[in-house]
Amino acid sequence: MSITLYSLCGTDAARPFSPHCWKIVMALAHKGLDFEERPLPFTAIPQIENGASATVPLIRDGDRLVSDSFQIALYLEEAYPEQPSLFNGDGGKAMARFVEGYSQTVLHTAATKIGVKMIHDMLDPVDREYFRRTREGRLGGTLEDISSNRDAEIAAFPAKLEPIRHMLKFQPFLGGEGPLFADYIVVGLFQWLRITTGSTHLSVADPVTLWLDRCLDLFGGRARAVA
Amino acid sequence: MSITLYSLCGTDAARPFSPHCWKIVMALAHKGLDFEERPLPFTAIPQIENGASATVPLIRDGDRLVSDSFQIALYLEEAYPEQPSLFNGDGGKAMARFVEGYSQTVLHTAATKIGVKMIHDMLDPVDREYFRRTREGRLGGTLEDISSNRDAEIAAFPAKLEPIRHMLKFQPFLGGEGPLFADYIVVGLFQWLRITTGSTHLSVADPVTLWLDRCLDLFGGRARAVA
Repeated sequence: MSITLYSLCGTDAARPFSPHCWKIVMALAHKGLDFEERPLPFTAIPQIENGASATVPLIRDGDRLVSDSFQIALYLEEAYPEQPSLFNGDGGKAMARFVEGYSQTVLHTAATKIGVKMIHDMLDPVDREYFRRTREGRLGGTLEDISSNRDAEIAAFPAKLEPIRHMLKFQPFLGGEGPLFADYIVVGLFQWLRITTGSTHLSVADPVTLWLDRCLDLFGGRARAVA
Repeated sequence: MSITLYSLCGTDAARPFSPHCWKIVMALAHKGLDFEERPLPFTAIPQIENGASATVPLIRDGDRLVSDSFQIALYLEEAYPEQPSLFNGDGGKAMARFVEGYSQTVLHTAATKIGVKMIHDMLDPVDREYFRRTREGRLGGTLEDISSNRDAEIAAFPAKLEPIRHMLKFQPFLGGEGPLFADYIVVGLFQWLRITTGSTHLSVADPVTLWLDRCLDLFGGRARAVA
Protein backbone atom coordinates (compact mmCIF):
# COMPACT_ATOMS: atom_id res chain seq x y z
CA MET A 1 0.00 0.00 0.00
CA SER A 2 1.28 3.41 -0.95
CA ILE A 3 2.19 6.05 1.64
CA THR A 4 0.20 9.30 1.61
CA LEU A 5 2.12 12.54 2.17
CA TYR A 6 -0.03 15.53 3.07
CA SER A 7 1.78 18.70 2.08
CA LEU A 8 1.16 22.41 1.56
CA CYS A 9 0.23 24.49 -1.49
CA GLY A 10 -1.21 27.82 -2.50
CA THR A 11 -3.68 28.30 -5.34
CA ASP A 12 -1.57 26.04 -7.57
CA ALA A 13 -1.60 22.46 -6.26
CA ALA A 14 1.17 21.58 -8.72
CA ARG A 15 3.62 23.77 -6.82
CA PRO A 16 3.71 22.65 -3.18
CA PHE A 17 6.24 24.89 -1.47
CA SER A 18 6.73 23.91 2.19
CA PRO A 19 10.42 23.34 2.98
CA HIS A 20 9.54 20.73 5.58
CA CYS A 21 7.33 18.81 3.14
CA TRP A 22 10.08 18.86 0.51
CA LYS A 23 12.42 17.24 3.03
CA ILE A 24 9.96 14.34 3.17
CA VAL A 25 9.41 14.11 -0.59
CA MET A 26 13.17 13.64 -0.90
CA ALA A 27 13.35 11.25 2.07
CA LEU A 28 10.56 9.04 0.67
CA ALA A 29 12.24 8.99 -2.75
CA HIS A 30 15.60 8.21 -1.10
CA LYS A 31 13.98 5.22 0.61
CA GLY A 32 12.53 4.13 -2.75
CA LEU A 33 9.00 4.12 -1.33
CA ASP A 34 5.82 4.59 -3.34
CA PHE A 35 3.89 7.60 -2.15
CA GLU A 36 1.12 9.91 -3.19
CA GLU A 37 1.51 13.60 -2.33
CA ARG A 38 -1.67 15.49 -1.46
CA PRO A 39 -0.97 19.23 -1.31
CA LEU A 40 -3.55 21.25 0.62
CA PRO A 41 -3.91 24.94 1.48
CA PHE A 42 -3.11 26.23 4.98
CA THR A 43 -6.72 26.39 6.24
CA ALA A 44 -7.47 22.81 5.13
CA ILE A 45 -4.67 21.30 7.22
CA PRO A 46 -6.53 21.08 10.57
CA GLN A 47 -9.17 18.86 8.92
CA ILE A 48 -6.75 16.28 7.47
CA GLU A 49 -7.21 12.77 8.88
CA ASN A 50 -9.77 14.00 11.44
CA GLY A 51 -7.44 16.63 12.86
CA ALA A 52 -4.41 14.38 13.25
CA SER A 53 -1.94 17.28 13.11
CA ALA A 54 -1.93 21.08 13.12
CA THR A 55 0.92 21.07 10.62
CA VAL A 56 2.24 19.31 7.56
CA PRO A 57 4.14 17.23 6.59
CA LEU A 58 1.91 14.45 7.84
CA ILE A 59 2.17 10.95 6.45
CA ARG A 60 -0.20 8.00 6.58
CA ASP A 61 1.57 4.67 6.21
CA GLY A 62 -1.04 1.95 6.64
CA ASP A 63 -2.36 2.42 10.17
CA ARG A 64 0.36 4.86 11.17
CA LEU A 65 0.09 8.64 11.10
CA VAL A 66 3.33 10.55 11.68
CA SER A 67 3.85 14.33 11.63
CA ASP A 68 6.92 16.60 11.96
CA SER A 69 9.57 16.26 9.30
CA PHE A 70 12.35 14.99 11.57
CA GLN A 71 10.02 12.49 13.28
CA ILE A 72 8.90 11.25 9.86
CA ALA A 73 12.52 10.73 8.78
CA LEU A 74 13.22 8.80 12.01
CA TYR A 75 10.06 6.74 11.44
CA LEU A 76 11.03 5.89 7.85
CA GLU A 77 14.51 4.87 8.97
CA GLU A 78 13.07 2.53 11.60
CA ALA A 79 10.20 1.16 9.51
CA TYR A 80 12.28 0.57 6.36
CA PRO A 81 15.72 -0.50 7.59
CA GLU A 82 16.43 -2.51 4.42
CA GLN A 83 16.08 0.56 2.20
CA PRO A 84 18.96 3.07 1.80
CA SER A 85 19.71 4.78 5.10
CA LEU A 86 18.76 8.42 5.66
CA PHE A 87 21.37 8.87 8.40
CA ASN A 88 24.19 6.31 8.03
CA GLY A 89 24.38 5.57 11.72
CA ASP A 90 23.67 7.13 15.09
CA GLY A 91 26.28 9.87 14.66
CA GLY A 92 24.62 10.98 11.43
CA LYS A 93 21.21 10.91 13.10
CA ALA A 94 22.44 13.12 15.96
CA MET A 95 24.23 15.60 13.72
CA ALA A 96 21.26 15.91 11.36
CA ARG A 97 19.64 17.76 14.28
CA PHE A 98 22.46 20.26 14.16
CA VAL A 99 22.01 20.69 10.41
CA GLU A 100 18.29 21.25 11.11
CA GLY A 101 19.31 23.86 13.70
CA TYR A 102 21.51 25.67 11.20
CA SER A 103 18.88 25.51 8.45
CA GLN A 104 16.09 26.63 10.74
CA THR A 105 17.82 29.41 12.67
CA VAL A 106 20.13 30.81 9.98
CA LEU A 107 18.72 30.04 6.51
CA HIS A 108 15.01 29.83 7.27
CA THR A 109 15.10 33.17 9.09
CA ALA A 110 16.67 34.81 6.05
CA ALA A 111 14.35 33.08 3.58
CA THR A 112 11.31 34.25 5.52
CA LYS A 113 12.37 37.87 5.17
CA ILE A 114 13.04 37.34 1.47
CA GLY A 115 9.91 35.38 0.60
CA VAL A 116 7.12 36.04 3.06
CA LYS A 117 5.17 38.47 0.92
CA MET A 118 5.52 36.29 -2.18
CA ILE A 119 4.20 33.29 -0.26
CA HIS A 120 1.20 35.38 0.80
CA ASP A 121 0.51 36.30 -2.79
CA MET A 122 0.48 32.62 -3.87
CA LEU A 123 -2.43 31.83 -1.54
CA ASP A 124 -6.22 31.81 -1.86
CA PRO A 125 -7.95 34.74 -0.11
CA VAL A 126 -8.98 32.71 2.96
CA ASP A 127 -5.42 31.41 3.34
CA ARG A 128 -3.99 34.87 2.83
CA GLU A 129 -5.98 36.11 5.80
CA TYR A 130 -4.81 33.15 7.94
CA PHE A 131 -1.19 33.49 6.81
CA ARG A 132 -1.04 37.23 7.43
CA ARG A 133 -2.58 36.97 10.89
CA THR A 134 -0.40 34.09 12.11
CA ARG A 135 2.88 35.26 10.55
CA GLU A 136 2.47 38.86 11.60
CA GLY A 137 1.86 37.66 15.16
CA ARG A 138 4.84 35.34 15.09
CA LEU A 139 7.26 37.70 13.38
CA GLY A 140 6.18 40.87 15.17
CA GLY A 141 5.42 43.12 12.22
CA THR A 142 3.32 43.43 9.08
CA LEU A 143 4.32 41.30 6.09
CA GLU A 144 5.22 44.54 4.37
CA ASP A 145 7.50 45.56 7.27
CA ILE A 146 9.19 42.16 7.29
CA SER A 147 9.76 42.41 3.55
CA SER A 148 10.98 45.99 3.64
CA ASN A 149 14.62 44.98 4.07
CA ARG A 150 14.36 42.33 1.36
CA ASP A 151 17.20 43.57 -0.88
CA ALA A 152 19.64 43.66 2.03
CA GLU A 153 18.58 40.15 3.09
CA ILE A 154 19.18 38.84 -0.43
CA ALA A 155 22.61 40.50 -0.48
CA ALA A 156 23.50 38.97 2.90
CA PHE A 157 22.17 35.50 2.05
CA PRO A 158 25.15 33.91 0.21
CA ALA A 159 27.52 34.52 3.15
CA LYS A 160 25.24 32.43 5.37
CA LEU A 161 26.15 29.35 3.31
CA GLU A 162 29.84 29.48 4.29
CA PRO A 163 29.62 26.40 6.56
CA ILE A 164 28.36 24.37 3.58
CA ARG A 165 31.06 25.73 1.27
CA HIS A 166 33.73 24.68 3.76
CA MET A 167 32.25 21.16 3.91
CA LEU A 168 32.09 20.95 0.10
CA LYS A 169 35.88 21.32 -0.09
CA PHE A 170 36.10 17.80 1.29
CA GLN A 171 33.03 15.91 0.04
CA PRO A 172 30.15 16.28 -2.46
CA PHE A 173 27.25 16.03 0.03
CA LEU A 174 26.52 16.76 3.69
CA GLY A 175 26.04 13.00 3.91
CA GLY A 176 29.54 12.38 2.51
CA GLU A 177 29.88 10.59 -0.83
CA GLY A 178 26.10 10.48 -1.25
CA PRO A 179 23.13 12.50 0.03
CA LEU A 180 21.44 11.85 3.38
CA PHE A 181 18.51 13.45 5.20
CA ALA A 182 20.83 16.30 6.25
CA ASP A 183 21.13 17.26 2.59
CA TYR A 184 17.35 17.15 2.15
CA ILE A 185 16.91 19.50 5.10
CA VAL A 186 18.80 22.18 3.17
CA VAL A 187 17.28 21.15 -0.18
CA GLY A 188 13.86 21.83 1.39
CA LEU A 189 14.93 25.37 2.16
CA PHE A 190 16.09 25.94 -1.42
CA GLN A 191 12.94 24.42 -2.90
CA TRP A 192 10.98 26.88 -0.81
CA LEU A 193 13.07 29.76 -2.17
CA ARG A 194 12.93 28.52 -5.76
CA ILE A 195 9.17 27.99 -5.77
CA THR A 196 8.09 31.06 -3.81
CA THR A 197 10.67 33.63 -4.92
CA GLY A 198 11.78 32.19 -8.26
CA SER A 199 15.47 32.14 -7.31
CA THR A 200 18.03 30.54 -5.01
CA HIS A 201 19.70 33.96 -4.69
CA LEU A 202 23.09 32.32 -5.36
CA SER A 203 25.41 32.67 -8.34
CA VAL A 204 25.57 29.81 -10.85
CA ALA A 205 29.25 29.16 -10.05
CA ASP A 206 28.71 29.00 -6.27
CA PRO A 207 29.77 25.58 -4.89
CA VAL A 208 26.42 25.53 -3.09
CA THR A 209 24.65 25.88 -6.44
CA LEU A 210 26.65 22.94 -7.77
CA TRP A 211 25.69 20.87 -4.70
CA LEU A 212 22.04 21.87 -5.12
CA ASP A 213 22.19 20.88 -8.80
CA ARG A 214 23.39 17.42 -7.75
CA CYS A 215 20.44 17.16 -5.36
CA LEU A 216 17.90 18.45 -7.88
CA ASP A 217 19.10 15.76 -10.31
CA LEU A 218 18.25 12.98 -7.83
CA PHE A 219 15.25 10.69 -8.33
CA GLY A 220 14.68 11.62 -11.96
CA GLY A 221 14.85 15.34 -11.24
CA ARG A 222 11.78 15.22 -9.00
CA ALA A 223 12.59 18.42 -7.10
CA ARG A 224 13.92 20.26 -10.14
CA ALA A 225 10.59 19.73 -11.94
CA VAL A 226 8.79 22.04 -9.50
CA ALA A 227 9.84 25.68 -9.52
CA MET B 1 54.09 3.45 23.72
CA SER B 2 52.49 6.79 24.47
CA ILE B 3 51.35 9.17 21.72
CA THR B 4 53.00 12.59 21.53
CA LEU B 5 50.77 15.59 20.77
CA TYR B 6 52.62 18.71 19.67
CA SER B 7 50.48 21.75 20.46
CA LEU B 8 50.74 25.53 20.76
CA CYS B 9 51.42 27.86 23.66
CA GLY B 10 52.52 31.38 24.45
CA THR B 11 54.92 32.31 27.26
CA ASP B 12 53.03 29.99 29.64
CA ALA B 13 53.44 26.35 28.55
CA ALA B 14 50.76 25.34 31.06
CA ARG B 15 48.11 27.13 29.03
CA PRO B 16 48.16 25.79 25.47
CA PHE B 17 45.41 27.66 23.62
CA SER B 18 45.04 26.41 20.03
CA PRO B 19 41.42 25.43 19.29
CA HIS B 20 42.58 22.74 16.86
CA CYS B 21 44.96 21.22 19.42
CA TRP B 22 42.20 21.16 22.05
CA LYS B 23 40.06 19.15 19.64
CA ILE B 24 42.80 16.51 19.68
CA VAL B 25 43.35 16.60 23.45
CA MET B 26 39.65 15.77 23.78
CA ALA B 27 39.73 13.18 20.98
CA LEU B 28 42.71 11.35 22.51
CA ALA B 29 41.05 11.36 25.94
CA HIS B 30 37.78 10.13 24.34
CA LYS B 31 39.69 7.22 22.83
CA GLY B 32 41.23 6.50 26.23
CA LEU B 33 44.75 6.74 24.83
CA ASP B 34 47.86 7.68 26.80
CA PHE B 35 49.48 10.77 25.40
CA GLU B 36 52.00 13.41 26.28
CA GLU B 37 51.24 16.98 25.20
CA ARG B 38 54.22 19.13 24.20
CA PRO B 39 53.17 22.77 23.81
CA LEU B 40 55.53 24.91 21.75
CA PRO B 41 55.53 28.55 20.66
CA PHE B 42 54.61 29.52 17.09
CA THR B 43 58.17 29.97 15.82
CA ALA B 44 59.30 26.56 17.14
CA ILE B 45 56.67 24.64 15.16
CA PRO B 46 58.57 24.39 11.84
CA GLN B 47 61.40 22.55 13.61
CA ILE B 48 59.24 19.85 15.24
CA GLU B 49 60.05 16.32 14.04
CA ASN B 50 62.48 17.62 11.40
CA GLY B 51 59.93 19.90 9.82
CA ALA B 52 57.11 17.36 9.59
CA SER B 53 54.36 20.01 9.54
CA ALA B 54 53.97 23.77 9.28
CA THR B 55 51.12 23.65 11.78
CA VAL B 56 49.98 21.95 14.96
CA PRO B 57 48.30 19.75 16.06
CA LEU B 58 50.81 17.14 14.98
CA ILE B 59 50.90 13.72 16.59
CA ARG B 60 53.54 11.04 16.67
CA ASP B 61 52.12 7.56 17.24
CA GLY B 62 54.99 5.08 16.99
CA ASP B 63 56.27 5.44 13.43
CA ARG B 64 53.33 7.55 12.29
CA LEU B 65 53.23 11.34 12.10
CA VAL B 66 49.80 12.88 11.42
CA SER B 67 48.90 16.58 11.22
CA ASP B 68 45.63 18.52 10.74
CA SER B 69 43.00 18.06 13.44
CA PHE B 70 40.37 16.38 11.26
CA GLN B 71 42.95 14.03 9.72
CA ILE B 72 44.18 13.13 13.19
CA ALA B 73 40.62 12.32 14.31
CA LEU B 74 40.14 10.12 11.21
CA TYR B 75 43.48 8.42 11.90
CA LEU B 76 42.59 7.71 15.55
CA GLU B 77 39.23 6.29 14.50
CA GLU B 78 40.90 3.93 12.04
CA ALA B 79 43.90 3.00 14.19
CA TYR B 80 41.88 2.40 17.38
CA PRO B 81 38.57 0.92 16.24
CA GLU B 82 38.06 -0.95 19.53
CA GLN B 83 38.09 2.27 21.55
CA PRO B 84 34.98 4.52 21.81
CA SER B 85 34.06 5.93 18.39
CA LEU B 86 34.65 9.61 17.60
CA PHE B 87 32.00 9.62 14.84
CA ASN B 88 29.47 6.81 15.39
CA GLY B 89 29.35 5.81 11.75
CA ASP B 90 29.92 7.22 8.30
CA GLY B 91 27.05 9.71 8.55
CA GLY B 92 28.57 11.18 11.69
CA LYS B 93 31.96 11.35 10.02
CA ALA B 94 30.54 13.24 7.04
CA MET B 95 28.50 15.68 9.11
CA ALA B 96 31.42 16.42 11.45
CA ARG B 97 32.87 18.23 8.40
CA PHE B 98 29.80 20.45 8.37
CA VAL B 99 30.20 21.16 12.09
CA GLU B 100 33.83 22.04 11.33
CA GLY B 101 32.57 24.36 8.59
CA TYR B 102 30.19 26.09 10.99
CA SER B 103 32.82 26.38 13.72
CA GLN B 104 35.49 27.62 11.35
CA THR B 105 33.50 30.10 9.26
CA VAL B 106 31.06 31.43 11.86
CA LEU B 107 32.52 31.02 15.36
CA HIS B 108 36.23 31.13 14.61
CA THR B 109 35.82 34.32 12.58
CA ALA B 110 34.07 35.99 15.51
CA ALA B 111 36.54 34.67 18.09
CA THR B 112 39.45 36.00 16.06
CA LYS B 113 38.04 39.52 16.18
CA ILE B 114 37.41 39.15 19.91
CA GLY B 115 40.72 37.57 20.89
CA VAL B 116 43.44 38.36 18.38
CA LYS B 117 45.13 41.12 20.37
CA MET B 118 44.98 39.12 23.61
CA ILE B 119 46.62 36.14 21.88
CA HIS B 120 49.38 38.44 20.68
CA ASP B 121 49.96 39.67 24.22
CA MET B 122 50.36 36.08 25.53
CA LEU B 123 53.35 35.43 23.26
CA ASP B 124 57.11 35.80 23.57
CA PRO B 125 58.58 38.77 21.64
CA VAL B 126 59.80 36.67 18.70
CA ASP B 127 56.40 35.00 18.39
CA ARG B 128 54.62 38.33 18.69
CA GLU B 129 56.47 39.55 15.63
CA TYR B 130 55.62 36.37 13.70
CA PHE B 131 51.99 36.42 14.82
CA ARG B 132 51.46 40.07 13.97
CA ARG B 133 53.03 39.76 10.53
CA THR B 134 51.15 36.60 9.47
CA ARG B 135 47.77 37.53 10.97
CA GLU B 136 47.83 41.08 9.68
CA GLY B 137 48.57 39.72 6.20
CA ARG B 138 45.84 37.11 6.43
CA LEU B 139 43.19 39.34 8.00
CA GLY B 140 43.97 42.47 6.01
CA GLY B 141 44.47 44.98 8.82
CA THR B 142 46.51 45.70 11.91
CA LEU B 143 45.72 43.67 15.02
CA GLU B 144 44.48 46.91 16.55
CA ASP B 145 42.12 47.51 13.59
CA ILE B 146 40.79 43.97 13.78
CA SER B 147 40.18 44.38 17.51
CA SER B 148 38.60 47.81 17.20
CA ASN B 149 35.09 46.42 16.85
CA ARG B 150 35.60 43.97 19.72
CA ASP B 151 32.65 45.05 21.88
CA ALA B 152 30.21 44.71 18.98
CA GLU B 153 31.63 41.27 18.14
CA ILE B 154 31.14 40.14 21.73
CA ALA B 155 27.57 41.44 21.69
CA ALA B 156 26.85 39.62 18.41
CA PHE B 157 28.52 36.36 19.47
CA PRO B 158 25.72 34.61 21.43
CA ALA B 159 23.31 34.79 18.46
CA LYS B 160 25.79 32.81 16.38
CA LEU B 161 25.19 29.79 18.63
CA GLU B 162 21.50 29.48 17.65
CA PRO B 163 22.05 26.30 15.59
CA ILE B 164 23.49 24.60 18.68
CA ARG B 165 20.64 25.82 20.92
CA HIS B 166 18.10 24.35 18.48
CA MET B 167 19.94 21.01 18.57
CA LEU B 168 20.10 21.06 22.38
CA LYS B 169 16.30 21.07 22.56
CA PHE B 170 16.44 17.45 21.40
CA GLN B 171 19.67 15.97 22.78
CA PRO B 172 22.48 16.78 25.25
CA PHE B 173 25.41 16.67 22.76
CA LEU B 174 26.08 17.23 19.06
CA GLY B 175 26.93 13.52 19.08
CA GLY B 176 23.50 12.66 20.52
CA GLU B 177 23.33 11.06 23.98
CA GLY B 178 27.11 11.35 24.38
CA PRO B 179 29.86 13.57 22.97
CA LEU B 180 31.64 12.87 19.67
CA PHE B 181 34.40 14.64 17.74
CA ALA B 182 31.81 17.18 16.51
CA ASP B 183 31.38 18.33 20.11
CA TYR B 184 35.15 18.62 20.55
CA ILE B 185 35.37 20.82 17.45
CA VAL B 186 33.22 23.41 19.21
CA VAL B 187 34.82 22.75 22.61
CA GLY B 188 38.15 23.67 20.99
CA LEU B 189 36.74 27.04 20.00
CA PHE B 190 35.52 27.72 23.53
CA GLN B 191 38.80 26.62 25.10
CA TRP B 192 40.51 29.13 22.86
CA LEU B 193 38.13 31.87 24.02
CA ARG B 194 38.38 30.88 27.70
CA ILE B 195 42.17 30.73 27.72
CA THR B 196 42.95 33.75 25.57
CA THR B 197 40.11 36.13 26.52
CA GLY B 198 39.14 34.80 29.96
CA SER B 199 35.48 34.33 29.02
CA THR B 200 33.11 32.31 26.83
CA HIS B 201 31.10 35.52 26.30
CA LEU B 202 27.89 33.59 27.09
CA SER B 203 25.54 33.90 30.04
CA VAL B 204 25.66 31.19 32.73
CA ALA B 205 22.07 30.13 31.97
CA ASP B 206 22.64 29.79 28.22
CA PRO B 207 21.93 26.20 27.06
CA VAL B 208 25.28 26.37 25.25
CA THR B 209 27.00 27.11 28.57
CA LEU B 210 25.30 24.06 30.10
CA TRP B 211 26.45 21.92 27.16
CA LEU B 212 29.99 23.30 27.51
CA ASP B 213 29.93 22.54 31.24
CA ARG B 214 29.09 18.92 30.41
CA CYS B 215 32.05 18.81 28.04
CA LEU B 216 34.44 20.51 30.47
CA ASP B 217 33.51 17.87 33.07
CA LEU B 218 34.64 15.03 30.77
CA PHE B 219 37.86 13.09 31.41
CA GLY B 220 38.30 14.30 34.97
CA GLY B 221 37.77 17.93 34.02
CA ARG B 222 40.85 17.98 31.79
CA ALA B 223 39.71 20.97 29.67
CA ARG B 224 38.20 22.85 32.61
CA ALA B 225 41.56 22.78 34.41
CA VAL B 226 43.13 25.10 31.82
CA ALA B 227 41.73 28.62 31.63
